Amino acid sequence: MELQFLGTGAGVPATSRNVTSIALKLLDECNEIWLFDCGEGTQQQILKTHIRPRKINKIFITHLHGDHIFGLPGLLSSRSFQGGDENLVIYGPKGIKKFVETTLKISESRLSYKISYVELDAFEGVKTIIDNKKFKVEVALLDHRIHSFGYRIIEKDLPGELLIDKVKAANIPQGPVYSQLKKGEIVTLEDGRTFDGKDFIGQPKKGRIVTILGDTRKTPNVEILAKDADVLVHESTFGKDEQKLAANYYHSTSTQAATVAKNANVKRLFLTHISARYVGKLAYQLQKEARSIFKNTKIAWDFDVFEIPSIKETNKKEGDKK
Amino acid sequence: MELQFLGTGAGVPATSRNVTSIALKLLDECNEIWLFDCGEGTQQQILKTHIRPRKINKIFITHLHGDHIFGLPGLLSSRSFQGGDENLVIYGPKGIKKFVETTLKISESRLSYKISYVELDAFEGVKTIIDNKKFKVEVALLDHRIHSFGYRIIEKDLPGELLIDKVKAANIPQGPVYSQLKKGEIVTLEDGRTFDGKDFIGQPKKGRIVTILGDTRKTPNVEILAKDADVLVHESTFGKDEQKLAANYYHSTSTQAATVAKNANVKRLFLTHISARYVGKLAYQLQKEARSIFKNTKIAWDFDVFEIPSIKETNKKEGDKK
Repeated sequence: MELQFLGTGAGVPATSRNVTSIALKLLDECNEIWLFDCGEGTQQQILKTHIRPRKINKIFITHLHGDHIFGLPGLLSSRSFQGGDENLVIYGPKGIKKFVETTLKISESRLSYKISYVELDAFEGVKTIIDNKKFKVEVALLDHRIHSFGYRIIEKDLPGELLIDKVKAANIPQGPVYSQLKKGEIVTLEDGRTFDGKDFIGQPKKGRIVTILGDTRKTPNVEILAKDADVLVHESTFGKDEQKLAANYYHSTSTQAATVAKNANVKRLFLTHISARYVGKLAYQLQKEARSIFKNTKIAWDFDVFEIPSIKETNKKEGDKK
Repeated sequence: MELQFLGTGAGVPATSRNVTSIALKLLDECNEIWLFDCGEGTQQQILKTHIRPRKINKIFITHLHGDHIFGLPGLLSSRSFQGGDENLVIYGPKGIKKFVETTLKISESRLSYKISYVELDAFEGVKTIIDNKKFKVEVALLDHRIHSFGYRIIEKDLPGELLIDKVKAANIPQGPVYSQLKKGEIVTLEDGRTFDGKDFIGQPKKGRIVTILGDTRKTPNVEILAKDADVLVHESTFGKDEQKLAANYYHSTSTQAATVAKNANVKRLFLTHISARYVGKLAYQLQKEARSIFKNTKIAWDFDVFEIPSIKETNKKEGDKK
């Protein structure tokens, strides 16, 4: 599980930062790449990475501002041109379907795959939009000039591994019985001995949580979505001294993002959607401001890759899981 | 008058060529920049040049395929964001207005200037879409899968300069009379002498012609638009050996472009809209193929700048103009 920032700027592209897009690479987990927002030039940014557009099968749009969606028609067309034929789902605010369908229709772009849409209107609380064997994705409304959403990607806990050493110590002969034990089944060997698989399975492994937010002002849903996340991606359009400006433009500051990270007990915070006014050293100032509140903060740059540490053991004792 | 290629690729962006856009810089002539097509990422390409988006006040779209228009909403928004407030005209096939208006509306992009549209439907022959003191622009339909147009930009001939040496030799005293003579008027001095301004004006200067074509197969209108042009920008999606493929996809080859240049008696040919299959040396092969037919050919690369030689004296003798 890797996070790669494809665009980390705000509003308009700049020489040092393109407009917003973030890839969540789930290649080991399910051989998929999920894209969060798709500002203009995202496909050109992707050309400079190892990402293959055909692997992107889910796109999550936080809100409909141009710097978050104008790259969508081009990416979708190129994905088709480059042989992508797996169907794709786009999640986003109401209007995203019309945007994509109108642009593709007027340009007479014919795709080699189907797009389905999950459109979001305003709602209270947290909604689940994906819930499969491996992942659950929750979404909630933030506070921006237009409807803007935050996504919480929750990896399901994985069962523990088979404790091979313990199996061998019990003199259980190798064979199909191993996979039965791994599933936690009770097995009876040919020699009459009976074993409970649960006694041979290690601790379950806790899934990771990644929270990726759209543009927003300070609002309670942010902390709800970020609660205990392994990684929080939070906008920091402005520095701490521009709190009024940030509020006026429905954006956040470095220290507001850091406060969320602290209150929500996240493990790591990435600041993104950085205004073009913060170039070079000034950008690191935002990071410094945030770190004074939440130490494990990093300002994101285009193409930054962050490997989200592999699944950790839970703190539960072995006995707890029975 | 300068031509700058902002994107010279075909269909999808590649690492070496972005999708189509060409700037015609008329800064000395009228302090304007005219843009021809606006593929995704054009505004990012512009960031790497000296072009200021606010100077772009006319955009000509050749056809509605995505690689020629998907950069339009972003460029228009950024132009506004960066303080551009002069109104802008977009010329292009029917549908371009809906494309721009829908994308700007869904993204709730508010512009600080007004856009007016000149939409083109299919028509026979050549149509004039601009005719002012300095320029005339003609347009004609080409032959592509969808309506694709070619533009012929004709600089108006400029009157000759006042021949100062001749004026002085005639002992005409300096003063407002000079500007009357420059206008070709007949003036009578205080001392009673009468002069005809026409006798003191140099040869008129012939305006330049630049022809920029959209994607097309071989078709008669191409040569009509290119006739005697100083510069012809012609697509060369494929090499000479792919004539069938080119025809199937409604595109042209290097040698077809060169044949047009030769038949139309143009001065210089630029090949653009190069398929991504022609990388590195292979691209120069296209240039070589074209040069075997029309010597003054250059394959265009992103960011190439070509200064179109300044206005030349006509071949007319001074006596002819009377």
